[in-house]
Amino acid sequence: MISQINRPTLLLDLSRVRNNLRKMVDKAHQTGVRLRPHFKTHQSVEIGNMARSMGIDAITVSSLKMAEFFNHNGWDDITVAFPVNLREITEINRLAKQARLQLILEDPYVAARLEAKLQEQVRVWIEVDLGDKRSGIWYEHQDKILELARYLRNESDNLVLMGLLSHTGYAYGARSKAEILDIHLESTQRIKALKEMLEAAGLGEIAISMGDTPTSSVAEDFEHLDEIRPGNFFFYDLMQHQIGACEESDIAVLMVCPVVAVEPDKGQMIIHGGAVHFSKERLTGPDGNPYYGKLVPLLESGWGPSIDATITSLSQEHGVIKASPEILNQYLPGDLVGILPVHSCLTANLMRGYMSLDGQLIFGMT
Amino acid sequence: MISQINRPTLLLDLSRVRNNLRKMVDKAHQTGVRLRPHFKTHQSVEIGNMARSMGIDAITVSSLKMAEFFNHNGWDDITVAFPVNLREITEINRLAKQARLQLILEDPYVAARLEAKLQEQVRVWIEVDLGDKRSGIWYEHQDKILELARYLRNESDNLVLMGLLSHTGYAYGARSKAEILDIHLESTQRIKALKEMLEAAGLGEIAISMGDTPTSSVAEDFEHLDEIRPGNFFFYDLMQHQIGACEESDIAVLMVCPVVAVEPDKGQMIIHGGAVHFSKERLTGPDGNPYYGKLVPLLESGWGPSIDATITSLSQEHGVIKASPEILNQYLPGDLVGILPVHSCLTANLMRGYMSLDGQLIFGMT
Repeated sequence: MISQINRPTLLLDLSRVRNNLRKMVDKAHQTGVRLRPHFKTHQSVEIGNMARSMGIDAITVSSLKMAEFFNHNGWDDITVAFPVNLREITEINRLAKQARLQLILEDPYVAARLEAKLQEQVRVWIEVDLGDKRSGIWYEHQDKILELARYLRNESDNLVLMGLLSHTGYAYGARSKAEILDIHLESTQRIKALKEMLEAAGLGEIAISMGDTPTSSVAEDFEHLDEIRPGNFFFYDLMQHQIGACEESDIAVLMVCPVVAVEPDKGQMIIHGGAVHFSKERLTGPDGNPYYGKLVPLLESGWGPSIDATITSLSQEHGVIKASPEILNQYLPGDLVGILPVHSCLTANLMRGYMSLDGQLIFGMT
Repeated sequence: MISQINRPTLLLDLSRVRNNLRKMVDKAHQTGVRLRPHFKTHQSVEIGNMARSMGIDAITVSSLKMAEFFNHNGWDDITVAFPVNLREITEINRLAKQARLQLILEDPYVAARLEAKLQEQVRVWIEVDLGDKRSGIWYEHQDKILELARYLRNESDNLVLMGLLSHTGYAYGARSKAEILDIHLESTQRIKALKEMLEAAGLGEIAISMGDTPTSSVAEDFEHLDEIRPGNFFFYDLMQHQIGACEESDIAVLMVCPVVAVEPDKGQMIIHGGAVHFSKERLTGPDGNPYYGKLVPLLESGWGPSIDATITSLSQEHGVIKASPEILNQYLPGDLVGILPVHSCLTANLMRGYMSLDGQLIFGMT
């Protein structure tokens, strides 16, 4: 099947996906935390169904459009883990009629406008920024968190406060399991203190939703958390491997690209596989230079461990792979190469679909 | 029309596109060079039709898939400016029956296999690498260029040699019009010497196809060139502006994104507009930090000059804009912002379509 590929194709090892999912489902079970996986990485009905078959009934998405897509495909309990966009109020009201929608808020201004325009009750979480410096109320601003929680609990009718939600994206700065665990513990302490502050203020029970792929993959203990929302773990990628969140052998997606030129005099080969396939997400190699993917040998059904050859530059359709003469000698134009992607979410988003190892096509969101 | 946008939208100023195109068409006319514009930037039938209305009848694309798309939409004379992928021989033969297809080659191995499998005569160019270090025969390897040219002229029946083709992508390292002109002159000298070498070897007339957006935009003289193939100039972008290839006011595309959070305490606001909309193409600011787009004020119909606010980080759907308190004070969640993209080709590829200033939807390749 692989041998019939003639254009850049995202290969999916479903047994690795199943294994990644099984491990996370089992861990959530054993630790008593709810797993609400993020579907932004795979964006696929079929992979979603695999999660459902393991007992998953609640999901996370990163846009209202993605929420509409998965609701249309049979998912009911959906958290949009992205700040409410007031311009989508019509779409929010429509979806809130059909699904058990959960939204996130950080601003009383947005909360008040949403309250005024909602036609249904909607469950909401206060987004807290525990160190990420992206969205969410900065965790040290307890007064702001308290003010918003009071408004939601005591003054609004349409907004039902569930608790505190955070994305600890700063775990992506880690470079080992130990560093990830430190961030997991630190962020858990910070959000737990906020929960206790709110409960001490008489605001009732405050749940905690927190846990991305690095922390959920590495931590064995989710004490104080009610829910985790990892997404990348379905596939993993080179970035997660560099962070320390997975083994290379956990990575479940591979770009397969035709070789179109082998140029030993320049120490490189050219593949059909560019920025419109991989995305321009990059990592920094030991030599200080960026790279966009790592070469692996293709096997009859799957692929082997990475070898010392990386994509060193990408233009729209071209990828340049630098490698030793020994490696370059093994390839001819017309061959296929396998490339582990740096960031599987962005690659999957660009490719809009997958091919399984037995040649089955699996579609992404369109 | 702009005011009705509720999700990330790529706005297109058609009068700027028309102006960019008109200038390039006129310049090609005046200098006697053939303009074979690259359609990989816009990937749009309608924008293609605008080029046709100005007398363009031959185009460049970056993949066979794109060649199929534009052939299906009425274009006959198409150069695929990407090394031949031997795995697409069936598709090449199919397209060669329907269109005047032109291909590029750098390797005698590929040429011989193509020759053996082609069912029609196809015009080909030898790709030369004049300093880019991407695909093409390195310009100093005259023996290799001569060998391939001899094979194509004297031994192959199905491959009709047109001449030498190059992409001077190293012009993207320029930072002023003067530097671009230097590269234009240097690459012209290099490719002209190769043409003369081949013609002196009795290989007949050798045409030259060379000229990307930076060089074609800045040069006023294309002596020795038969054809130029700029593509980005339809839209331009911040990268072209930084290189010195255009004025900011030439940039014809703008991402319009909803503001979802304003966080003066962090010196930032959050927009719905992430890596899946902009791509992760980046430029380096005066402070040494990367940025992914520049804020402009939205006007009733169009936009004004950029202000001192940039996207400093992107995740899948979030964009973080750093700006002064004075600028942040002007925005509320639910407002729209306009962002000039770093690389319009990759942004357009992700967005898959445009909205004109009067609200008309224009589709890209699907």
